[in-house]
Amino acid sequence: MPAFNPLVEKLSPPPVPSVAAWGRAYDGSQGPLIDLAQAVPGYPAHPEMLKLLGEAASSPAFTGYGPIEGETELRRVYAEHLSQVYGAPLGLENVHITSGCNQAFVCAAMTVAGPGNTVLMTEPFYFNHETTLAMMAIRTAFVSCEPANGFLPDLLALEEAITGDVRALAVVSPNNPTGAIYPPSLLEAIFKLCREKGIWLILDETYRDFMPEAGLVGGGRAPHGLFGLDGWEDTLISLYSFSKSFCIPGHRLGAVTAGAGVVAQVAKIMDNLQICAPRAAQAAVARALPLLAGWREENRQEIGRRAGALKAAMRSVNGWKLDAIGAYFAFVRHPFPGRGSAEVAEKLARQAGIVCIPGAYFGDSQQNYLRFAFANADAPTIGLLEERLRNFSLS
Amino acid sequence: MPAFNPLVEKLSPPPVPSVAAWGRAYDGSQGPLIDLAQAVPGYPAHPEMLKLLGEAASSPAFTGYGPIEGETELRRVYAEHLSQVYGAPLGLENVHITSGCNQAFVCAAMTVAGPGNTVLMTEPFYFNHETTLAMMAIRTAFVSCEPANGFLPDLLALEEAITGDVRALAVVSPNNPTGAIYPPSLLEAIFKLCREKGIWLILDETYRDFMPEAGLVGGGRAPHGLFGLDGWEDTLISLYSFSKSFCIPGHRLGAVTAGAGVVAQVAKIMDNLQICAPRAAQAAVARALPLLAGWREENRQEIGRRAGALKAAMRSVNGWKLDAIGAYFAFVRHPFPGRGSAEVAEKLARQAGIVCIPGAYFGDSQQNYLRFAFANADAPTIGLLEERLRNFSLS
Repeated sequence: MPAFNPLVEKLSPPPVPSVAAWGRAYDGSQGPLIDLAQAVPGYPAHPEMLKLLGEAASSPAFTGYGPIEGETELRRVYAEHLSQVYGAPLGLENVHITSGCNQAFVCAAMTVAGPGNTVLMTEPFYFNHETTLAMMAIRTAFVSCEPANGFLPDLLALEEAITGDVRALAVVSPNNPTGAIYPPSLLEAIFKLCREKGIWLILDETYRDFMPEAGLVGGGRAPHGLFGLDGWEDTLISLYSFSKSFCIPGHRLGAVTAGAGVVAQVAKIMDNLQICAPRAAQAAVARALPLLAGWREENRQEIGRRAGALKAAMRSVNGWKLDAIGAYFAFVRHPFPGRGSAEVAEKLARQAGIVCIPGAYFGDSQQNYLRFAFANADAPTIGLLEERLRNFSLS
Repeated sequence: MPAFNPLVEKLSPPPVPSVAAWGRAYDGSQGPLIDLAQAVPGYPAHPEMLKLLGEAASSPAFTGYGPIEGETELRRVYAEHLSQVYGAPLGLENVHITSGCNQAFVCAAMTVAGPGNTVLMTEPFYFNHETTLAMMAIRTAFVSCEPANGFLPDLLALEEAITGDVRALAVVSPNNPTGAIYPPSLLEAIFKLCREKGIWLILDETYRDFMPEAGLVGGGRAPHGLFGLDGWEDTLISLYSFSKSFCIPGHRLGAVTAGAGVVAQVAKIMDNLQICAPRAAQAAVARALPLLAGWREENRQEIGRRAGALKAAMRSVNGWKLDAIGAYFAFVRHPFPGRGSAEVAEKLARQAGIVCIPGAYFGDSQQNYLRFAFANADAPTIGLLEERLRNFSLS
């Protein structure tokens, strides 16, 4: 048999399906399965969203190829939305629609880095970012984010890590896996560092809409002010996912927001990757974006309540520690130091029916942690964690 | 401004939008615009297809993430279909669904080749294959396919070109851009050559359903017998698109058919690229595949009539020569040797309202050619070409 590409062959199989398999081995003895693994809001998409999706998909208007950069209407409406969220003038020329945010990351990374270049990341990291870069032969370097610092990176450490071969810094805020929300002042400092060093800043904002102060119907605090800073087009590439906010990951929609020059490069990549993102969902989201602002705001508040429920549940469980909690995820320290996070997660799934992602999947040094996608579950379900964790032992 | 990845920066902008712009500059003086550029069947999707797409897209069942490899039902139904088409036992473990056939090619290429490896291609080539490999730093080598040989590759030339750094041979049958259909015996010889040399054969069969003898409702001739040959799983990676056959390119669905070991590698790539292909369209196509077999067979016959109309139209136009015509495309020699194909195509679009792709986009040595996606237009429209070409002059 001829060889595979070793860059692909040496990747581990995708982690989410293997974690799901642990959950399927749970016998139900502790009550219903609590799935805190893959980030999927536990409430369904809005009926109006489904109606719009159905209308667009059954229309002959969207069966043909569409513009590579995305449906003009979605780019326009989304740029308007962005302008409101960030308080900065963004136009459709700043938007490229992709098939989900993983693809937005592929496009951003490939735009700025080729084989042998380095992309600097924060650790713990989102595993698909790491494997994406690895399979494209882009080197990675990491700046450790410590629990004592709220899992935020240290600016001096970042500066030291930006060596000559680093082409971009990739950060995720609100963070996956820790949930940590980078304050606007920190993001501004990071941006200015990147601008000064002449490297790109790739900022994954998938979970932006779930920030405690987002205020999706106006009056909220902007996640950051970077789009208003001098030269942002030559430094910043921001990524977003429509999947979580609209509860439609199966329809695969994300976006790159960047300078028009970056968007032109991304279009060349997207043309090769898949010509254009699926069109019907783009048309539907263009209509849903203003229409469902109130609904998304309610969800944001609901997820805030879930965060509260998790804090309450974890307060009284001996040994377990909520080291970080943010917009969607919590990074939880388990009470079994020296035991691998995969072993803990597997047994937690099989014995206690709590499915979550082992910390080590986000970096070898995260063995003491588990990622809880707490926003998946409603507050009463989250309340069940307390007793289950208390009764859990590593047999 | 920090640098872009030079592999991406040096790619030309996507060709199809620029060709479309030439068409928009046409003043209509010769009658309606005839768009033979991007391959899109000129008839609409079947109403039942639209209905199924609408039902699936409006269903909460497909809003969440799905299996990376594709919807189980589509993989099962498509494997059954493949087993009939090729007369060989194929199962769902041999199928990976992708977001269109370009993405299937990305996955196949990345599975077998990394930066610095070489993929051997036939020339003229499908431009997105070439740019895809270039942006991934995979080297390319070419075997020229001569008009005198019906644009089929010469086996000895292929054998000589398979040097030590070649990891795969990529061929397209029915061919894009020439339309040439590789006879089963040639494909078998190519397969055996690849197997003997220990390299992969990537076979893009996007236009398979439009072959003159395909017989989509049974009794047709198989495109080839490779899936029945010893060791096919360790040599062959076949690619397909649901876009053309079902007239739904906007919904972005394609497939890789390969050994289970290859499918496992592709899943790792797809998880990084976009987690899974859009789900609702997968569910709809799973139902449409058996349901619309008769309709697709009618379309196949209709495209046969369109080929006949093109042959008739071109017969009496002085200087223009139909050097190849096949399942979807014709490769047409224009009567202006020494003038670039882009110049000819641009003026043909602006002055005569005939939009097609310049030969040079498929390889520098194809300056004397234009690609006509004749299957886009119905027979009466194709009949209009005769007078327009006769009256056309390079001013």
